[in-house]
Amino acid sequence: MLPSMRLEYADILIDVKKGVILEIGNSLQGDREINVSGKLVIPGLVNSHTHLAMTLLRGYSDDKPLEKWLEEDIWPIESYLGPADVYKGSQLALAELIKSGTTSFCDMYFHMGKVAEATKLSGLRAVLGQGVITVDKKIEDAHKDAEEGLSFAKKFNKSISDKIKTAFMPHSITTVGKEYFEEYIPRSRELGVPVHLHANETLQDVKDSMRKYGKRPIEFAVENGILEPGDFAAHCVHVDANEIGLLAKNDIGVIHCPASNMKLASGMAPVQELLDSGVRVGLGTDGAASNNDLDLFGEMRDAAMVGKLATGNASSVNATSVVSMATSEGSKILGFLGGEIEVGQNADIAVLDLESAHMTPIREGTSLLVYSANGADVIHTICGGEILMRDRKITTLNESKIIKDAQECSDSLIEKMENNI
Amino acid sequence: MLPSMRLEYADILIDVKKGVILEIGNSLQGDREINVSGKLVIPGLVNSHTHLAMTLLRGYSDDKPLEKWLEEDIWPIESYLGPADVYKGSQLALAELIKSGTTSFCDMYFHMGKVAEATKLSGLRAVLGQGVITVDKKIEDAHKDAEEGLSFAKKFNKSISDKIKTAFMPHSITTVGKEYFEEYIPRSRELGVPVHLHANETLQDVKDSMRKYGKRPIEFAVENGILEPGDFAAHCVHVDANEIGLLAKNDIGVIHCPASNMKLASGMAPVQELLDSGVRVGLGTDGAASNNDLDLFGEMRDAAMVGKLATGNASSVNATSVVSMATSEGSKILGFLGGEIEVGQNADIAVLDLESAHMTPIREGTSLLVYSANGADVIHTICGGEILMRDRKITTLNESKIIKDAQECSDSLIEKMENNI
Repeated sequence: MLPSMRLEYADILIDVKKGVILEIGNSLQGDREINVSGKLVIPGLVNSHTHLAMTLLRGYSDDKPLEKWLEEDIWPIESYLGPADVYKGSQLALAELIKSGTTSFCDMYFHMGKVAEATKLSGLRAVLGQGVITVDKKIEDAHKDAEEGLSFAKKFNKSISDKIKTAFMPHSITTVGKEYFEEYIPRSRELGVPVHLHANETLQDVKDSMRKYGKRPIEFAVENGILEPGDFAAHCVHVDANEIGLLAKNDIGVIHCPASNMKLASGMAPVQELLDSGVRVGLGTDGAASNNDLDLFGEMRDAAMVGKLATGNASSVNATSVVSMATSEGSKILGFLGGEIEVGQNADIAVLDLESAHMTPIREGTSLLVYSANGADVIHTICGGEILMRDRKITTLNESKIIKDAQECSDSLIEKMENNI
Repeated sequence: MLPSMRLEYADILIDVKKGVILEIGNSLQGDREINVSGKLVIPGLVNSHTHLAMTLLRGYSDDKPLEKWLEEDIWPIESYLGPADVYKGSQLALAELIKSGTTSFCDMYFHMGKVAEATKLSGLRAVLGQGVITVDKKIEDAHKDAEEGLSFAKKFNKSISDKIKTAFMPHSITTVGKEYFEEYIPRSRELGVPVHLHANETLQDVKDSMRKYGKRPIEFAVENGILEPGDFAAHCVHVDANEIGLLAKNDIGVIHCPASNMKLASGMAPVQELLDSGVRVGLGTDGAASNNDLDLFGEMRDAAMVGKLATGNASSVNATSVVSMATSEGSKILGFLGGEIEVGQNADIAVLDLESAHMTPIREGTSLLVYSANGADVIHTICGGEILMRDRKITTLNESKIIKDAQECSDSLIEKMENNI
């Protein structure tokens, strides 16, 4: 009932060249000005686990459990995705992120060079990685996949843009063979990039890991140096007390994806328990095919809602902790200086309109953000001091062309798939 | 994976005087025209359980379980709510409903004459009822409350507008004494209006009923004629197999309120089981203090998501059934001819913009509505042939004045509450 985030009134001075916040106070003077009086200024949101180009598959396969969804629908159609498709799907996703106030994200997919290119043009901040899968592949193809993962991580780390970093991204403990972890994880460490993977997403994933290694996925990953301090794992729905302890002790971040975990009936992650144990938790939408949007406001709401269901306690996963997950905690996990409106931090900012029925009455910020707002309330999006959207119009991308291209691309993919071309 | 609601292209001819759909086809001619080509035309949504004026308490008390939330925060501040406050809060809610494409709703609150007045001006369709609570009241006050419930139901049933009907609304089995049910339910039957109440919302509610009557709430209600065919109950989170059978057999509607049930940690209603048993299920947002919005698109998404969690099966509570709950099923429960775009039905229609990143690609309707859309995608709202919102501008209400009034009203309420005035 007591306000946890009182609204304050201030000017924010940004060093546009360095892309950071220089000063916060009253009557500050700069060369240019955006008047946001009466609006809500928040740190740009951080989508810490997604698969951008899956926007092409939005609504392609709904109401199916994870394994069937992947094996019967998603993987088959993904096999038709070429670099140009991934570029178009990523552009669509980037437009959606900017429109809903997200300024940083972490993407795991393939044809990642194209994703990096599209991300650079969008002006968003990102950690990118090529997903590596080795199961059911010929040995030479599996090695090729892992090598590509490494070489992408090496080539694109802070090279084409200051805003783009990389990670090494084996898909999961059960979809990558042990021998590949043994060979490629040490090589990724030499590059100085973190490891990101899916872990403990479904009961099936845990069962498979137990059958294969006699260990649960997080347990196996930590014991084998696959996850180390600074690395981060998505989902972690079915983690036991020992694994929660390992995550906390080793400073391994967890990316909570509540919408995807609900939509695929994977389960409810023990988020309050993770927080209470000192595990750093970020928030991710997962891909648009299992969500079906990339709106982090919806994800915040889902996190708060399902967090209460999971414990049966309405004070669990409260609005304040959810806002942290979607901003400062996500930023820290991805290794960015951001997620807070503070001097010296990246000038990553979203500005929300407050003058609408569903945002009235205005009392304090966190409750509005988590329980009332959605992406459409964002009017300006700024990343590193660069205005990416002004008055709902994206400045860095041609949104209507992107929408048209993505529709055509998606239609053509489905046609190929249906006709087995 | 197979489209369940293919998109079609057609003209819709509306008899504006009768407020119904006259013809659906190609190249139809009317006196006036709204061009909606390229847009998605859907039945206006039906919010079958809400408490409009609680918009004033949006964000006032978050992250608390139902009983504490009601007893410590909501009921105390509600005791300060006068008729003028309820009018302003209801106006705010009506604006939010129109903006998010809802055309019919069911409201239970107090000072309902004011709600009826505000509803008439808004142009929306509604079932209204004065909530009756008798516990912890002096006998004379309890009777006064019940008499007010009856007299409102009598006076306002189809009297001030063709679009406004009434119901008799005892709050719940455990907050109204048995003797009052015995006296007032038969009198409400004479009025020919249905009964609507909260039932089996929390485990506590079930326990209280068991202690008091040795019966579960729905069981007690049906056995005692409190719920009969055509009546409807909100929540029904904790219903057992016998109660589900009673609901089905007696054609008693259930209003599912997934967001409120999550936010207050009440639990997960067995919606797939209700559907499989032939129970008619509608959808409600509940009040804005436990949601915190009245956007039925969010509620559809929540229903699909939590429906899958409840069974552990991702094919449960699929998009098609959710759209039905929010349109045709809700309409049938409330006793309106609507919820479908069909000749002879009420011309209650919402038109959505599709040209945005988060609605791309367009493939079929239900998936977009449930998993991608939100209220802000609605551009026109039509109820009974009357345009209530055109190009996001409400025609029947002064939205900016309503927002200003509601903010002042809410601030003043909280001031009174905090200073014990």
